[in-house]
Amino acid sequence: MQTLITTPRDDGFYMPAEWAPHAQTWMVWPERTDNWRLGAQPAQAAFTEVARAIAQFEPVTMLVSVRQIKNAIAHLQASPTPHSIRVVEIATDDAWCRDTGPTFVVNKQGDVRGCDWTFNAWGGLDGGLYSSWAHDDAVAEKILQLERLPRYRTPDFILEGGAIHVDGEGTLLVTEQCLLNKNRNPNMNRHAIEEKLRAYLNVEKIIWLPRGIVNDETDEHVDNVACFAAPGVVLLAWTEDRNDPQFAYSQAALNVLMRERDAKGRELKVIKLPLPANMFGRAEEYATIDSVSDNEGMTREANTRLAGSYINFYICNGGLIVPKFDDPNDNVAAALLADAFPNHRVVQVPGREILLGGGNIHCITQQQPVSA
Amino acid sequence: MQTLITTPRDDGFYMPAEWAPHAQTWMVWPERTDNWRLGAQPAQAAFTEVARAIAQFEPVTMLVSVRQIKNAIAHLQASPTPHSIRVVEIATDDAWCRDTGPTFVVNKQGDVRGCDWTFNAWGGLDGGLYSSWAHDDAVAEKILQLERLPRYRTPDFILEGGAIHVDGEGTLLVTEQCLLNKNRNPNMNRHAIEEKLRAYLNVEKIIWLPRGIVNDETDEHVDNVACFAAPGVVLLAWTEDRNDPQFAYSQAALNVLMRERDAKGRELKVIKLPLPANMFGRAEEYATIDSVSDNEGMTREANTRLAGSYINFYICNGGLIVPKFDDPNDNVAAALLADAFPNHRVVQVPGREILLGGGNIHCITQQQPVSA
Repeated sequence: MQTLITTPRDDGFYMPAEWAPHAQTWMVWPERTDNWRLGAQPAQAAFTEVARAIAQFEPVTMLVSVRQIKNAIAHLQASPTPHSIRVVEIATDDAWCRDTGPTFVVNKQGDVRGCDWTFNAWGGLDGGLYSSWAHDDAVAEKILQLERLPRYRTPDFILEGGAIHVDGEGTLLVTEQCLLNKNRNPNMNRHAIEEKLRAYLNVEKIIWLPRGIVNDETDEHVDNVACFAAPGVVLLAWTEDRNDPQFAYSQAALNVLMRERDAKGRELKVIKLPLPANMFGRAEEYATIDSVSDNEGMTREANTRLAGSYINFYICNGGLIVPKFDDPNDNVAAALLADAFPNHRVVQVPGREILLGGGNIHCITQQQPVSA
Repeated sequence: MQTLITTPRDDGFYMPAEWAPHAQTWMVWPERTDNWRLGAQPAQAAFTEVARAIAQFEPVTMLVSVRQIKNAIAHLQASPTPHSIRVVEIATDDAWCRDTGPTFVVNKQGDVRGCDWTFNAWGGLDGGLYSSWAHDDAVAEKILQLERLPRYRTPDFILEGGAIHVDGEGTLLVTEQCLLNKNRNPNMNRHAIEEKLRAYLNVEKIIWLPRGIVNDETDEHVDNVACFAAPGVVLLAWTEDRNDPQFAYSQAALNVLMRERDAKGRELKVIKLPLPANMFGRAEEYATIDSVSDNEGMTREANTRLAGSYINFYICNGGLIVPKFDDPNDNVAAALLADAFPNHRVVQVPGREILLGGGNIHCITQQQPVSA
């Protein structure tokens, strides 16, 4: 629980790959009725399905507000799971543990610590999605307190866990659209941001993709467009439709990935993961979201394109939790992921309800590596 | 986190003695300004001293409301302790973890579970100390969720952890004044209450002391008047002043203890622990407690006698945390306790501030036994 004034790099800690063994997965229960329709009940059912899928593979902690403890227990613990799902009280502003939880780092001895990035709800008062975000900015510290783990805090650097993907061997993937956005760290240039990332994630090579997925409310987090399947292997969200604005985004990412080398000097193999067909929020879906007059970020317009992507899956101990959208590509993506992760079992979970709230399975999970 | 419909006795679980090895100690941060004077700040300092004393011997978890997280961290983690003190968010009604936390039970294999007694703030609307007590009644379940431990709930039985003391070998100490009080389980007679205690604590012999300590707001919990120092050895709060109403209470307890045998058929050795000189709340102390118009239970009258007692100490791994009151008997009690616990180191901590709120060190702590 000590807050350290050094950096992970100073201390020999680094961010491991998501496929490194987990102690548990952290999630946050969806509750806010101005983001989740019908009093958040469909979202709660969707999050429950994700949590129970993960609990086939590893323990889960669900962080829940005091008002929803009993309801969350009733859903999550309705019947036993192979690994337990505990319900822990915490005040939050919304339910995106990827972005509000700590980014865990480890050393060679198997000690675990956490990076507690300053969080501003994906843009603060300049395009951020809600205000206040004070509870969400405190989530990472509370998780580290719960686990009695030391904390690195970056009071002068805003970042979210969904904005970074590592191979665990010194290489980091990010998007320019997010990390260079003036609504995050307006006084830092690319070089200064790289230096922070090197110091806290202990990476050597940073690969900048220009863009993410069209209409992604996070300013195009990398975790919706590309991730590592293994060192030297990148999965990339892909469309063959040249009339889709996503085509240029994905093509630009591919161009970068084809010309870059990773931290170990390897060329990158790119696996194109097809996107689902374009999806749009429906008026009847948005009609049951509580109105907000003071926060345009949360306002949902009917027929706005949703940023659905299979890349937004989660790797847990022996499993991949993959969104499905009632789309022909559901099974294409699942098959490609099964090939890319031969030691993991693919579990498909409905993703539309989470997508309506602004993200998907990777966005609502955060892995904690095992301690020695 | 499973809520079991069996009883600990059914499953081979029993409550171990307080001196059995602990995994950690649970406490709750004092906050309510209608019970704790000066915005609860002196109480917070006192609880901090207790927590930091325990953390010389074992880990501590302090449960804190969302409003006080940062403040509690600043106090409790101001400098490192040999064992960590973590701060965990929970909504509570007040700060008595002995009575709101679970009573942990173990089996011979070293599995740990918890009893979650129904809690009614020491008497509900009939002499209870505050309303509502809904948050406090939920504390035990939240602790068990945090530890991923199974839960026994007694929806039809009200009890507090301070009302029971066991020797870990089948013997239980209670007071009639508390357990037979009509403000707890008015529809249960002594026999029915004994049956609940036997089923959930898995004890064979229940020793009923008539009374506890004069003016004890809990309806005279046993943990302020008597406890075990070892199987067959009972510590009893004592006064030689025949004009003190406590004399009759302590003498009656002694009479019971002298004639009873424990579950193993042993006679009981009684060690008389002298009480501090009578203490009274001062007008200037009570002047800085927020007024409550709707809850007489919390109203403090100046010059009311305080229920101070050295029996209200806490046994942790290798240590005894003992209240001191700037009284000549502070050192007499400490010496007697050191003799009674030759393998424990006595640490004296100021107790008056906690006493002003209605209890002492034992009342604000709850031990969790080690798991195998």
